Amino acid sequence: MFSFASDYTQGAHPAILDRLARINLEQQPGYGEDPICDSAKEKIRTACQAPDADVFFLVGGTQANATIIGGMLQNYQGVIAAVTGHIACHEAGAIEAGGHKVITLPQENGKMKAADLEAYLKAFYADGTYTHMVIPGMVYLSFPTEYGTLYSLEELTAISAICAEYNLKLFVDGARMGYGLASPACDVTLADLARLCDVFYIGGTKVGALFGEAVVFPKKAPAYFFTTIKQKGALLAKGWLLGVQFDTLFTDNLYASISKNAIDQAFRLRDGFKAKGYSFYLDSPTNQQFVILENDKLKELEQKVTFSIWEPLDANHTVVRFATSWATTAQQVDTLLEMI
Amino acid sequence: MFSFASDYTQGAHPAILDRLARINLEQQPGYGEDPICDSAKEKIRTACQAPDADVFFLVGGTQANATIIGGMLQNYQGVIAAVTGHIACHEAGAIEAGGHKVITLPQENGKMKAADLEAYLKAFYADGTYTHMVIPGMVYLSFPTEYGTLYSLEELTAISAICAEYNLKLFVDGARMGYGLASPACDVTLADLARLCDVFYIGGTKVGALFGEAVVFPKKAPAYFFTTIKQKGALLAKGWLLGVQFDTLFTDNLYASISKNAIDQAFRLRDGFKAKGYSFYLDSPTNQQFVILENDKLKELEQKVTFSIWEPLDANHTVVRFATSWATTAQQVDTLLEMI
Amino acid sequence: MFSFASDYTQGAHPAILDRLARINLEQQPGYGEDPICDSAKEKIRTACQAPDADVFFLVGGTQANATIIGGMLQNYQGVIAAVTGHIACHEAGAIEAGGHKVITLPQENGKMKAADLEAYLKAFYADGTYTHMVIPGMVYLSFPTEYGTLYSLEELTAISAICAEYNLKLFVDGARMGYGLASPACDVTLADLARLCDVFYIGGTKVGALFGEAVVFPKKAPAYFFTTIKQKGALLAKGWLLGVQFDTLFTDNLYASISKNAIDQAFRLRDGFKAKGYSFYLDSPTNQQFVILENDKLKELEQKVTFSIWEPLDANHTVVRFATSWATTAQQVDTLLEMI
Amino acid sequence: MFSFASDYTQGAHPAILDRLARINLEQQPGYGEDPICDSAKEKIRTACQAPDADVFFLVGGTQANATIIGGMLQNYQGVIAAVTGHIACHEAGAIEAGGHKVITLPQENGKMKAADLEAYLKAFYADGTYTHMVIPGMVYLSFPTEYGTLYSLEELTAISAICAEYNLKLFVDGARMGYGLASPACDVTLADLARLCDVFYIGGTKVGALFGEAVVFPKKAPAYFFTTIKQKGALLAKGWLLGVQFDTLFTDNLYASISKNAIDQAFRLRDGFKAKGYSFYLDSPTNQQFVILENDKLKELEQKVTFSIWEPLDANHTVVRFATSWATTAQQVDTLLEMI
Repeated sequence: MFSFASDYTQGAHPAILDRLARINLEQQPGYGEDPICDSAKEKIRTACQAPDADVFFLVGGTQANATIIGGMLQNYQGVIAAVTGHIACHEAGAIEAGGHKVITLPQENGKMKAADLEAYLKAFYADGTYTHMVIPGMVYLSFPTEYGTLYSLEELTAISAICAEYNLKLFVDGARMGYGLASPACDVTLADLARLCDVFYIGGTKVGALFGEAVVFPKKAPAYFFTTIKQKGALLAKGWLLGVQFDTLFTDNLYASISKNAIDQAFRLRDGFKAKGYSFYLDSPTNQQFVILENDKLKELEQKVTFSIWEPLDANHTVVRFATSWATTAQQVDTLLEMI
Repeated sequence: MFSFASDYTQGAHPAILDRLARINLEQQPGYGEDPICDSAKEKIRTACQAPDADVFFLVGGTQANATIIGGMLQNYQGVIAAVTGHIACHEAGAIEAGGHKVITLPQENGKMKAADLEAYLKAFYADGTYTHMVIPGMVYLSFPTEYGTLYSLEELTAISAICAEYNLKLFVDGARMGYGLASPACDVTLADLARLCDVFYIGGTKVGALFGEAVVFPKKAPAYFFTTIKQKGALLAKGWLLGVQFDTLFTDNLYASISKNAIDQAFRLRDGFKAKGYSFYLDSPTNQQFVILENDKLKELEQKVTFSIWEPLDANHTVVRFATSWATTAQQVDTLLEMI
Repeated sequence: MFSFASDYTQGAHPAILDRLARINLEQQPGYGEDPICDSAKEKIRTACQAPDADVFFLVGGTQANATIIGGMLQNYQGVIAAVTGHIACHEAGAIEAGGHKVITLPQENGKMKAADLEAYLKAFYADGTYTHMVIPGMVYLSFPTEYGTLYSLEELTAISAICAEYNLKLFVDGARMGYGLASPACDVTLADLARLCDVFYIGGTKVGALFGEAVVFPKKAPAYFFTTIKQKGALLAKGWLLGVQFDTLFTDNLYASISKNAIDQAFRLRDGFKAKGYSFYLDSPTNQQFVILENDKLKELEQKVTFSIWEPLDANHTVVRFATSWATTAQQVDTLLEMI
Repeated sequence: MFSFASDYTQGAHPAILDRLARINLEQQPGYGEDPICDSAKEKIRTACQAPDADVFFLVGGTQANATIIGGMLQNYQGVIAAVTGHIACHEAGAIEAGGHKVITLPQENGKMKAADLEAYLKAFYADGTYTHMVIPGMVYLSFPTEYGTLYSLEELTAISAICAEYNLKLFVDGARMGYGLASPACDVTLADLARLCDVFYIGGTKVGALFGEAVVFPKKAPAYFFTTIKQKGALLAKGWLLGVQFDTLFTDNLYASISKNAIDQAFRLRDGFKAKGYSFYLDSPTNQQFVILENDKLKELEQKVTFSIWEPLDANHTVVRFATSWATTAQQVDTLLEMI
């Protein structure tokens, strides 16, 4: 039985494994202080048009979120996220375990609205007792969001301006960055992110790598961020394993081209469901598609293919998620569409 | 200019200061291991009809909340609170600084509803990915709430039963406990709390003491709770200062009788405002009264008396809070009522 | 039975209680934002010859240590202390609970030596892997030390210079500050401390107050230190209680004069023991005297008077501590000396 | 230039990469809930003769240490380690960042002595103020130690008995476990560790894997340890990557046989240095050899080969470390020996 349960069900793009096998027994310095990491970082700087960026490679998403937030915030500060933000609900309290409150704002299609952010901040600083509360120090956005949606350049620019006004860091979680950038609905580039954010990461785990997230500080990393990584248990001894993966992904546009495949297959899947009369929970322009299934249909379908139960919609319907990835084949989508 | 801004604008009931002055130069062992604390604890056990209770004295409310939660929860657990709960919004992230997420549920008049709690827990454990999330380990209630309202015995019993079913500790923050118990609307006793809760505290800071909260574990304190107190920086060297205060408050029913004064004056204040046509934000049976003022009236009134701005209601009206206390005089209320 | 067990066995200097009783029912703003605190802070600035100092009042020593260290250090930093420093051994891990390693250096008579500090720092930064370790961010000294000893002005100056060179904050725990300043062996003043330190506190709990420590940042407090205090559960609702105490202690030289009494009685005690042939563990110029007792003598004496068992010296002897205080009377010392 | 700088300079045993390449595009469930992990866990249970053991796979050593300690200790507890233990000095304060003090005991050749442990615990509980201190909750040992030395079965048994007596968890960090077990000097087996410890891990990063540590709780894992892993940012999305590696290493005795190579080459290296008259800092029976070099010789040699500077011995000599690994060839050792 095959799976649309997530975009991390398979290993790495074969080009990564090939290269890994070739250099497997070469000796490398530890902890990312090797020439392969250097090369990968330089390619990422170029892709981001951020020649002075500090780049670090971490292993996974929750780890990246906790390490970045822990490294950038002061202890009296919290991080603002949409109530559906990954750090707000699906990270087992990793951010709070690091001492920081996640301050939640309403979401719409998984997105935080600039107007809500501004209203919150205005009200916060208007309250005479605000020093008795967690001081907002950062805004966390997911791009794409947990619902597959995208911030437009205009939206991102507005949020970035509010962050600047209220002295907040802007952090974009790009665990699925490739699938965002590859969407025809996207008008944001890595260079835009580098210009508008204080930090973001480019996800590898879900986009072609075995594992790995490339953290980019377009201006400058916080002091001793390497030590923070070590303290968080996030320092990979063989850091070059991360370097190899990102160096490969950022060679010959591989990251973009394999991301494109996920979008193409997601759209074929979406169109196929629509053609058969299915409704969608929302309109997602990326690799996650949220379909409304009748519960009987759901029970039937889950005998044949794996997908994610998202949430009950009403007594008779459930929202489910089908995720495509860099590795999804047209044939898998065809087979799925035949089943429904 | 006098103040209805809070219930902690003045020192202690004179009986406390008198006794303190009498024993000031007697030598006592440190850290609460003295006979005065022993006596106070015994009186509290009696008042709670909980002969086996472990009792500890802490200095303040946020400190008590952080110490109790930190001492009772495992690191993977969070605490459930109404979104208006003190720990959720006004403690500068003290709970998160201790590593625990505050999981918020909707509130109605400052109260958490048993039905909402149960629905949350059912949905939580129905989600196949719940081990990726903070595990709920405790329910936090305020009695009275931050809006002066009270849980009925029936409501508390229902919440306690849900806690038992889902293996949650039940913790009641009683920073204003006296004002709850003294309300004619209250059908809950200290003995009920001891029966229904795993831990609660009886507030002194706002109810007749200079400072201090008496933490009661009706069954048993967590292991090494004394060490947890020390680790949280919450161990008072001269612990007998807390003992003296609670021993006095729990002698001759003083705690109850001075709490009653706050209620009497609050009701006079309420009735006086009502008589002059003012509306209330909600119906509070305790010492905090939430009045709706026209903004012009507000500006005029704050030249003459101090009170708390709670929140804007609409463009022309604001919710303000008047708090009475054990020390409020009938004359103060009269003077206020003349002003309005 | 009377006690030399510690310098915090009794309440406050009567002048404090008198004043407290007089203003007990006056209404004050909360959280230290009152005119009494303002006055006390100004007196402390004057005493420290530090007109721009930020002053905060906290309740106790461990709380002050944890709050100051948590407020001044970044998460990747640790604090250097003598192995006998209070934060290193007697605070139940409060500093580590806040996320910071206590890096211990050898002690001599309770003091850290500038040479040891410099050697440690040189070796630390000479190690090519130092970014894998906790970065030293602060030096913690006690003045007087846990063994009653004092840093000379020359020693403090040397340590301060090393701190400046290696970008470390210098923090002096003055829980017994008065007893240090009042010693004839002391050549350090509050003004020296203000010049040489980044932060220090002037202890009240052990020197005439019911409780309280006055934290002085001679240059500037860390951003949002008020919020840090709240987050640590260290914000006293009735902050004016702390203001009253320090305002009284810093009026008419009271802090110095009552401290002097402790020294006078400690020296009488010391001389009395010496005259009877007792040996001392070390030569303490302040209010803590460390006497070597034969174990039989110890057993006999502890039937009559309370003191602290410090540590076994050898199979037959034990080091014990006698502490005098602002409240110790000449008669108590005489009685003790008759017993031995 | 080749390197003896560490045992993690190269990738994985080729059998691992081969298998990874074969299954790379197969779809697997996430987070270690896959059949490959199940198989690997079962093989490890068998190797440990611990059929009821709970096994988890983590990515690296510091991460494993912080996650295990954080998952097993209560907040008021600390962990006892030799002063040279990895958690005490080389993990950037990861344990303290999780809130726990590392309580250090003296070391001898990198080992904690049972007698020192027992003396510490006796003295600790004999001190009447012990509840003011961090309560010891765990003993941390490294096997082999950071100096390549090994605890004998007798030593481990003695420490385990003390742990049982004083209610301490016993935790063995086996980042280099294979190199310990493969030493002819070793009389300890995985089954012994499973019998004597509460938790230990079998290192992969340094012993044939790309990365990974297999954490074994011989009796039972702490409640919600999966959630703790997630909270620590230590949950690998593609957990099967860890399963594949350990399943391969524990097939056909591969872990033992490749570990043996490191020992054989280390001993050839040692004998070669000895034959040329070099002294050793201590007698290591495993893959890390600590040679004393004259500083001139050191400078000459580091032009030709990479190794680790350990510490200065005296003005003219330095201790350096040569580490072999599963991948070290006889030819590399020969070449090195020709250089010296």
